[in-house]
Amino acid sequence: MKKMVNNPDHVIDELMTGYLAAYPEYLRRSELHKRALIGNKRSEKRKVSVLIGGGSGHEPGFLGYVGKGMADGVAVGNIFASPSPIPIQAVTKEINQDYGVLYIYGNYAGDLMNFEMASEMTEIEDDIQTAAVIGNDDVASSKDIDDRRGIAGELLVYKAAGAAADFGYNLEEVRRIAQFANDQTRSMGIGLSPCYLPQTGKPSFDLEDNEMEIGLGHHGEPGIEKTTIRTAKETVNVIMQNILKEAIYHEGDEVVVLVNGLGATSQMELYIINKEVSEILEDKNISIYKTFVGNFITSMEMGGFSVTLMKVDETLKACVDHPVDCPNFKVV
Amino acid sequence: MKKMVNNPDHVIDELMTGYLAAYPEYLRRSELHKRALIGNKRSEKRKVSVLIGGGSGHEPGFLGYVGKGMADGVAVGNIFASPSPIPIQAVTKEINQDYGVLYIYGNYAGDLMNFEMASEMTEIEDDIQTAAVIGNDDVASSKDIDDRRGIAGELLVYKAAGAAADFGYNLEEVRRIAQFANDQTRSMGIGLSPCYLPQTGKPSFDLEDNEMEIGLGHHGEPGIEKTTIRTAKETVNVIMQNILKEAIYHEGDEVVVLVNGLGATSQMELYIINKEVSEILEDKNISIYKTFVGNFITSMEMGGFSVTLMKVDETLKACVDHPVDCPNFKVV
Repeated sequence: MKKMVNNPDHVIDELMTGYLAAYPEYLRRSELHKRALIGNKRSEKRKVSVLIGGGSGHEPGFLGYVGKGMADGVAVGNIFASPSPIPIQAVTKEINQDYGVLYIYGNYAGDLMNFEMASEMTEIEDDIQTAAVIGNDDVASSKDIDDRRGIAGELLVYKAAGAAADFGYNLEEVRRIAQFANDQTRSMGIGLSPCYLPQTGKPSFDLEDNEMEIGLGHHGEPGIEKTTIRTAKETVNVIMQNILKEAIYHEGDEVVVLVNGLGATSQMELYIINKEVSEILEDKNISIYKTFVGNFITSMEMGGFSVTLMKVDETLKACVDHPVDCPNFKVV
Repeated sequence: MKKMVNNPDHVIDELMTGYLAAYPEYLRRSELHKRALIGNKRSEKRKVSVLIGGGSGHEPGFLGYVGKGMADGVAVGNIFASPSPIPIQAVTKEINQDYGVLYIYGNYAGDLMNFEMASEMTEIEDDIQTAAVIGNDDVASSKDIDDRRGIAGELLVYKAAGAAADFGYNLEEVRRIAQFANDQTRSMGIGLSPCYLPQTGKPSFDLEDNEMEIGLGHHGEPGIEKTTIRTAKETVNVIMQNILKEAIYHEGDEVVVLVNGLGATSQMELYIINKEVSEILEDKNISIYKTFVGNFITSMEMGGFSVTLMKVDETLKACVDHPVDCPNFKVV
């Protein structure tokens, strides 16, 4: 492990301090809990609030997506571990504007338990109405859609929810649009090299020098297959076959493409991957409405990437186009 | 070497194809040369044009900084190699609006030769007036300021030049403001792990598992010292001492901070580094006007980072605040 850190036990507090020092105009720490961050920029209009959160180690996920047009607050967990219900409840109380709060989080046991507990606590103790959308875009993680993990596709769900809230929809309508965005979204990734947990120094998985793992989860959960490393074209072909066989995406459709780097893969490679994605879509006569390429939801310094497609109708296009001003994501 | 590419001989063409597929609204290929990219978004007002360029491998530098409020076109070289004069001339001809073209590039022998040659060619053959600002922000690269290399600080020079051009200044004034931005800017980096050149598979430098290299250049040029890896606090202290001893930055000054990841260093680490930078500046009573943290000018999958300070007066603050809409850099 070779990391530029101080005390491995303090990485979360220190990264949050460094984050708040970078973007004081965007975010502040809640006075209710140090792992609860509240956005300073939001639309002037009172509206449904959007709360995101999950484990740390995915920077700029998830704190980078608090801002005008996206989330209103974020609960921050330990590395690859759900935030506890207390900071979730703290964010909920601070961001609520009497229109209720939509929670968006990934389909992981810890997140499910803690967000559900926070929801019950705020409904009973604080009389705040909440709803939830649970990201489960990773097609490699299970055949059963309800068992699938949420990975980079969650970014597009945040985008849709933030826009829908700004459009003035009520909580149930914002939930419905965000759920629809999630339902139209599928992802799949591959791992090339592990990340290392700062406190243990242990790698998140083992791979030989000439191997890659297809379908790897973004905490290092096992994928479908370990194979010798293939070309970008061959690898993207496998990913796209798995995504396209979901029978959501048909000839004549329009999609948003998201190529997400896991942390240590070069931008050069991500754009070569995007070339392969765009050529396959062109071949299938599926048009690209908008493309995002970058390190959006990482796994610290893991090597690898994922590809996400979201099929868009007029509602989701309006959501995608809605301006966003977050520290790590801007749509102008 | 573990890279997600196809034919190593085609990485530049393929990344450019993938890049143009991602952002067709922002960039197009010049009909005059395939390594010449032209921005589609620019201010409605006719103005001085800004041309940037350099070797590939620094993605999203330099093509990611073409857009409204920044550069109007980019000439793309091979990996870590200057573009030839022909694409530079092609971009110059396409972006010029009769107000002349400012070239901004790093202080490297190949870039100096090729941009100067392109400048002569366009002045003689095309009657286009050009001027140049040469980035030399890396304090570790030489005691003699004229011999210093340009690294991540060039991003802030692009920002200043793009704004000054939009403000309607003439070529000499835009050059003067960009040169002033460069003169107020100092950077220093460290290397943790090498990148690998796709065609040779060779690492850009050698380091032991427990070593880092202070002052390393962003093509792997040797730094000041190889040492065992230190904490973020100790490392940033060394960097900041070297930057602050330049005698540009004094108590009461305002600076822009840029923490730039070289490609494989986690965002978590970059924010911990920013914590250390901000604490040193607070201690010195130097205030932070704005902070940028991310992988802006990378060295493919090199591990490491650089810290840049730019001292800002009212002119440079107006330039920093000016809205930008580029694929990989937005200021709203």
